[in-house]
This record gives sequence, structure tokens and C-alpha cells, in this order.
Amino acid sequence: MSNVDQRPIILTGDRPTGQLHLGHFVGSLRSRVGLQDSHHQHLLLADAQALTDNADNPDKVRRNILEVALDYLAVGIDPTKTTICVQSCLPALNELTMLYLNFVTVARLERNPTIKSEIQMRGFERDIPAGFLCYPVAQAADITAFKATVVPVGEDQIPMIEQTNEIVRRVNRQIGQDLLPECKALLSNMARLPGFDGKAKMSKSLGNTIVLNASDKDIKKAVNAMYTDPNHLRIEDPGQVEGNIVFTYLDAFDPNKEEVEELKAHYRRGGLGDGTVKKRLEGVLKELITPIRERREELAKDPDYIMDVLRQGTDKCRIITQQTLDEVKDGLGLFKF
Amino acid sequence: MSNVDQRPIILTGDRPTGQLHLGHFVGSLRSRVGLQDSHHQHLLLADAQALTDNADNPDKVRRNILEVALDYLAVGIDPTKTTICVQSCLPALNELTMLYLNFVTVARLERNPTIKSEIQMRGFERDIPAGFLCYPVAQAADITAFKATVVPVGEDQIPMIEQTNEIVRRVNRQIGQDLLPECKALLSNMARLPGFDGKAKMSKSLGNTIVLNASDKDIKKAVNAMYTDPNHLRIEDPGQVEGNIVFTYLDAFDPNKEEVEELKAHYRRGGLGDGTVKKRLEGVLKELITPIRERREELAKDPDYIMDVLRQGTDKCRIITQQTLDEVKDGLGLFKF
Repeated sequence: MSNVDQRPIILTGDRPTGQLHLGHFVGSLRSRVGLQDSHHQHLLLADAQALTDNADNPDKVRRNILEVALDYLAVGIDPTKTTICVQSCLPALNELTMLYLNFVTVARLERNPTIKSEIQMRGFERDIPAGFLCYPVAQAADITAFKATVVPVGEDQIPMIEQTNEIVRRVNRQIGQDLLPECKALLSNMARLPGFDGKAKMSKSLGNTIVLNASDKDIKKAVNAMYTDPNHLRIEDPGQVEGNIVFTYLDAFDPNKEEVEELKAHYRRGGLGDGTVKKRLEGVLKELITPIRERREELAKDPDYIMDVLRQGTDKCRIITQQTLDEVKDGLGLFKF
Repeated sequence: MSNVDQRPIILTGDRPTGQLHLGHFVGSLRSRVGLQDSHHQHLLLADAQALTDNADNPDKVRRNILEVALDYLAVGIDPTKTTICVQSCLPALNELTMLYLNFVTVARLERNPTIKSEIQMRGFERDIPAGFLCYPVAQAADITAFKATVVPVGEDQIPMIEQTNEIVRRVNRQIGQDLLPECKALLSNMARLPGFDGKAKMSKSLGNTIVLNASDKDIKKAVNAMYTDPNHLRIEDPGQVEGNIVFTYLDAFDPNKEEVEELKAHYRRGGLGDGTVKKRLEGVLKELITPIRERREELAKDPDYIMDVLRQGTDKCRIITQQTLDEVKDGLGLFKF
């Protein structure tokens, strides 16, 4: 790597509200491990954002910072390649957010489709915390503070990218030069992984997740409970692969795509029992999770090391984000000592 | 003063969007000069707040920081007694604001009567900048960061104090102890000074203000243009004192209340010309403004001194506000390195 890092800058991260699970692995973690070589990747532990709808439980957010950091390192995020940082320890992000809030109207925030659907999902109605309404602006601050040009998101998060670029254009126009870069969404090519009960949403509260340090017993239990084809009653009956969660998981995790296709064909024409397919999936998941779990257990013995990784990453990011803030303040012609 | 300063803490300040004028002198500056002995007074140059509705003109805000600081010192604010600081240079205020935004609903902010009327006044309608909607929360951050218990405000600002105390109670409840003090409004006992044209609002854009470094010529011109009693056509006619701006200004500035009452009686019964009353007011205003203008001119020759005052004040306030932020973060149990 040369002195001037020419790799595209990625900003991504997670709200630390719980341990990560296989849904995260498929949706983001796996690709982050790949991206850290080709990209200058920053991982934000978004504890401040998590507080926008967890103000009554800050303790949960704090505890999960370490848990998620452990998950990162366990899956192979390399802190010498990826900077891992804690959002609430980067004051410049707050300053940028407060500045940007002046460049966005309330009406615009209320029209944000992501916010709209999340408000509905969280049952906020008229009692939306103001911080929650403003979090797309905070996200714009995050992205621009790192001058990230690539932001991995799900389809449902595209309005957040649009909001960010709107702010970028407004601020640049006020400054009179293209100080802040616009960013592009990097869409995950994987569909969202359903819960093992077949529900579209995988969530800790629904109890349908497989965490990244699941024990062999947990894996077995989850696979056994997995939703298959309810009409596939006898082994010799033809079975349905679509919506059969065991096959969805095999598609997501089995490295041997060819054999999975053969299994699907066999299942469709009948003669392949759910037990056999589940056995295979159990093996695949164990092979995937065992080394992650073991690395995680090893890492968890040395919390000081994790803290050091976070501290060093955050220190680096403090310099980067403060630099951007300074440039924005100078560009706008704000007062500075 | 003992080592432990037991004086009540005041937070007050101004949005630096223009030079201060006689309206500010009557409404706040004069009493601040008195309060700085009995109170631990902090004066906030609220440039960040000024940006909430001046995002398209940050230059104006920056330039006026020095102007307002000059006004402060010229009227007798003593930087050894009063801490003068620049809001945008206190990052902890942004962090507290972002935290507090999670403890306030959007609906609550939209119900704020001060915000409602200011939205109308500024013609924002649906295009309110989000920063503007959130500024009562930023104000709560300002007040609580200094642990101020006394906040000098006009009648119309009382909802802001209520909003602050609501946030204080919510945050304290979440923390489980009374970390942040509630604050009380210190109402100005002076009615708002009207513009010299008789309009209720005194504002630079209306051109009806008398600035604190007005020249003798400016003063004469303003007093001559002053709205009196339009029905008082001849000297011998009885005149009306109510709504007669010359008398309103005499009430506000003439140190000899008794003589002013005599003049009013004379004016009412007839035989006192507008010219005579105006002459007196002109003298009173010159006596008030001349030393302020001269001190201001003297101070303006040494901008380094003004910058030093601001820098030292801001440095002190950075420590105070950071300390409060740390306490709030610790209290809520947030992550900290």
C-alpha cells in the first residue's frame, strides 16, 4: 500500500444492540472481510445511533459495543486493514450533524421512506424521538466525515444515501466547491436471510437467530426447528424447495453450490428426507461457525486487546473526522480559534 | 470570592447576527452588568444557534461574533467576572444536544409555542430547517452544560425554559439521580423597547434601531424621526404620552424619573412641544451612548485583545461543559474510553 491510499473509502457499521448473527454474516460481515483488501474500510460501532431508540436502555448499547467488536474480529475483520471505531467517541460527528440539520427541512426528514417505515415498525406514531427523526442527518455526518464514497446498504436503505447526497450538494453549494464527495450505495447481492422459523425478519426478540458463537447444540436445535415444506410428509413425496428455509440456508452457506443444486433436484422429485438435508446443513453451519466461535472465545479472554483495537481505531477516526469538520467549518467560513 | 463559588449560575447570550442596539441594552445588557457581581455569569455568543436560520449566510454570523463581543465589553461586561464564550467552539454542547434529542419527541418540539411563533415570523411554514426545530433542545444543552439555574429571558421565551426542565427531569430520571439542575426564568422587568418608528419590533432590517456605537448625528437623526403623538399638532394642544415613543425611551433611559413624570404631566395638559422633549431625549441618549461608543472604538483598535478574551472564556467553558457531558455520559452508563 502506497503512502497515499487510493482505495475507495467505505463507511459501514452496526448499531450495537445485540450480538451479530448469521443474518449479519450473509448480509454484510462476509463481504466486509473481502472488501477490506480492496477498500479503505471504516467500521462504525453506531452506539449514538442506537440510542435514538434505546434512550431508556443505554446499558444494553454500551455492553454490546464489545460484543459486536468481538463478532467483527472473530469473523476475520482485520484491524490492521479495517478501522473499527466507536461513534459516540467521535465528537466531530455531532458537530457535523448539528451543522447539517440546518440544511435539511423537517418536512424532508418526515418524507424519508426508511424513517417512515421504521417509525411504523417501532410503533412510534407521533411519539418519535427527535433524535430518531434526525438520524438520517447523523448518518450523512458519519458518511461524509470519512469522505466515504461507497456505503454498503440494503435496498431499504437507499433513501438514506439519497438524503446524504442531498446534504452533500447543499453544503458544497454553500461552500462553493465540491468539498464533500457524493456516495454510492453498494447493494448486497444476497437476499435478506430469513429467521430459522421461516419468518422474514431475523431478530433476537423473535428468538429465530443463530448467533455467531452458537454452540453445536444451538446449531442442531435451530436446524431441527427449521421450517421446511409442510406438505412434504413422506420421504418419497416430491418436496418444495422455494420457501424451504433449509435450502435457503444451504444456498447462503454451503460452499458446494453444485451439490446443493443436485439436492434440490432430488428433493423436488421426491425420495430425499428433510432429515438428510438438515444433517447436511447442520454440518455446513458447524464448519462455518466453529472456527468463528473458537476465535471469539479466545479473543473474549483478552478484553484489553479488544479495547485497544477500539481505542486505536477510534483515535485514527477522530483525526479523520475532525479534519473533515475543520474543512467544512473553514469552507462555510465559520468562526474558529 | 471564596474558592468554591456559591453564586447562582446564569447562562445567557445573544445570536451574533448583528450589532447590539438600545433594545438589547434595555432588555438584557444593562442587567447583565449588574448581575455579574452577584452571579456566576456565562455569556454565550450563540453562533451555532444563529446558523439554524442563517445557514445561507454563515459569514454574517462569523463577523458579528467580534461585533457583539465588542458591544459586551463596551457596555461594561467585565471578562474577569463574566465568562464570554463562543458556542460553536464548545463541542460538548453538540454532544449533549444529540443525546437530549432522544429524550424529546418531534410532536413536543412542534408544540413549542416559541418555535411556533418564530416559524410564523420567519415565514418558514413547512420548510423549517430541522436545526431550527431542534434548537430548544440545543438551548437545553447550553443551559444544562453550565448547570445554570438562572436564565434571563423575555416572557415569550418561557416555553424554552419549560422544555429545558422537561429534558432535565427525563435525563435525571434515566440516570437515577438529580444530576442536572432545573432552571428558573429571570424575567426582564422592562417591557420590550419599540423601534424608534413606533413599530413593536426593533430590528436592523427595519432600520429602526439605535446601535450602541451610534454617532451623535445618528442619535439626533433617530430622535428626530421618532414617532410621537400624531394628533399633537400644536404645542399648546394636550398630547398623549402612551404610545409616544419619545416618552417610552425617556422612561427607559432617563435617570431622572421624577422630571420625566413632570414632563409627561406637562405634555398631557398641553404647552410642551415635541421638540423640547426630543431635545431632552437626545441629550440623555448621547450621555448614555457616548462613553459606550468611545470604549468600543478604543477596544476595536485591539482585536487581539478581544480574541484573547473570547479564547480564554471559551477555554474555561470548554472545561465546564466537557465536565457536564462526562457526568451525563457516566450517569447514563454510556461507553467511554
